[in-house]
Amino acid sequence: MESQKPSDQEKGQAILNACLPFTGASIRVGITGTPGVGKSSFIEALGCYLTAQDHKVAVLAIDPSSPLSKGSILGDKTRMERLSRDPLAFIRPSPTAGSLGGVAQKTRETMLLCEAAGYDVVLLETVGVGQSEVAVHALSDFFLLLLLPGAGDELQGIKRGIVEMADLIAVNKSEGDRMPLAKRTKQAYRNALHLFPPKPSAWTPPVELCSAIQETGMDTIWKHIQQHQASTQSNGYWTKNRAEQVKYWFRESLQQGLWASLQNHPVIKEMLPQIEVAVLREEMTPFKGAQEILALFLPKSGI
Amino acid sequence: MESQKPSDQEKGQAILNACLPFTGASIRVGITGTPGVGKSSFIEALGCYLTAQDHKVAVLAIDPSSPLSKGSILGDKTRMERLSRDPLAFIRPSPTAGSLGGVAQKTRETMLLCEAAGYDVVLLETVGVGQSEVAVHALSDFFLLLLLPGAGDELQGIKRGIVEMADLIAVNKSEGDRMPLAKRTKQAYRNALHLFPPKPSAWTPPVELCSAIQETGMDTIWKHIQQHQASTQSNGYWTKNRAEQVKYWFRESLQQGLWASLQNHPVIKEMLPQIEVAVLREEMTPFKGAQEILALFLPKSGI
Repeated sequence: MESQKPSDQEKGQAILNACLPFTGASIRVGITGTPGVGKSSFIEALGCYLTAQDHKVAVLAIDPSSPLSKGSILGDKTRMERLSRDPLAFIRPSPTAGSLGGVAQKTRETMLLCEAAGYDVVLLETVGVGQSEVAVHALSDFFLLLLLPGAGDELQGIKRGIVEMADLIAVNKSEGDRMPLAKRTKQAYRNALHLFPPKPSAWTPPVELCSAIQETGMDTIWKHIQQHQASTQSNGYWTKNRAEQVKYWFRESLQQGLWASLQNHPVIKEMLPQIEVAVLREEMTPFKGAQEILALFLPKSGI
Repeated sequence: MESQKPSDQEKGQAILNACLPFTGASIRVGITGTPGVGKSSFIEALGCYLTAQDHKVAVLAIDPSSPLSKGSILGDKTRMERLSRDPLAFIRPSPTAGSLGGVAQKTRETMLLCEAAGYDVVLLETVGVGQSEVAVHALSDFFLLLLLPGAGDELQGIKRGIVEMADLIAVNKSEGDRMPLAKRTKQAYRNALHLFPPKPSAWTPPVELCSAIQETGMDTIWKHIQQHQASTQSNGYWTKNRAEQVKYWFRESLQQGLWASLQNHPVIKEMLPQIEVAVLREEMTPFKGAQEILALFLPKSGI
């Protein structure tokens, strides 16, 4: 699926299309968090907790910044030693670098293949580069944010809007001396989340403590994920959300394809930077600039 | 500028282009809030406070849902009686209904004309329909969220992500019996905003009490807006943000133009719904569906 070779891609798409009827039966969990929060240890702890219960767990990542050879999960894979040796787990680093849309599309296809292969839990890791959280969120049923015990300073590494996307906030490294601070953090986020608009899923995001190293909290977190599934499946949000995600990726693919063909157009390639400069210098309005580009790209459409 | 007639539009664009060198010298303040928060009274109170100080104030709105005849500000205009009689104020309802992009584009053009006409404060109202907050945010230097005294229930009418966009939260109707609750609301949001990632402008959004009816708090709010301007002008964010907004509207206009010409293509018009259904039924992947549409639209591009 990840090959760039046209003949491979054709074969891949044929296999994927044949697999489609067997996809969709997993719980897709997106996981994000600040650098240093212990994301890979957390994924290993949760993954091992799940395989011990006979779940088949696939771990995938979206990292538009790094080629295969230095993908963050590849590093993680060596750190996820126990999970990578587990026959019930499949760990795959991010597809090669490229546009976020391209990377996310390939990850989505790999996820579908994993589902067809019987993996019933997919853990999708975001690396916090570009808009990768948004892409992972648009692939997930459940979005989990990992934080550290602390007063909010740890959010330096998180982009705005992510806290509001979370279906669960887990305060990792809640262990030993850090327990009192972790408990205060939990209470502070519980209070804060109250002040934000309700989610369309009607789900109230819980805040929980956990420790990936001591493997505590995994049962509670997994229980919440299952409760979220039960509640959103019964209120119709689960199905609606999956359908909206498919529509989203369809629109995304279309818009990316359009955009790519615009940018690869030989005349546009030359004119776009010039017109953009004129627009930025306020020599013409953005609308006028766009009109000029479109007239070059679609001369017959009369726009 | 708002006319749909091609000959008017041509003239409008010519006038606008000639005005461009005289635009940009205002403070652009986006204002949003839950229904019932008293947005029009607030805008009138702030507007009158500013004209009393010899500012020239333009009030514009973005409402993609309603045609001119029933635009929310038109109703507001009769309620903003005092401000609409003020010779230093100009109030304009939202341009006619249409795509959000089209409405926002026209509002942006009107804003530029107002600036060329010497208005030094532009108040941009969002009506909370569709993504109008995002559009207003992309037109503003400063984004102000109005809330009611209360524990968060009033956020039912606000879309997620808006609280994090705010440069200032004003708790309106902070008067009489509501004062104790208003003060608790202010404290709760102050605490909560701490827990969210810092803004790229490095600005910490204050939370203030105000009463549009009693005309209290306007001085404090205006002081914050001026401080924000001074601080972002000195750290470079002001200029950077304006340039990014111009780039954003250029890209938006381009993407909307591309999308419109795709959807108006006679073959696509027929095929798009069919392929979308197949994608939603998971008979083909979103990527495959997009490829088929693009092959119909751009047969020569070889996508």
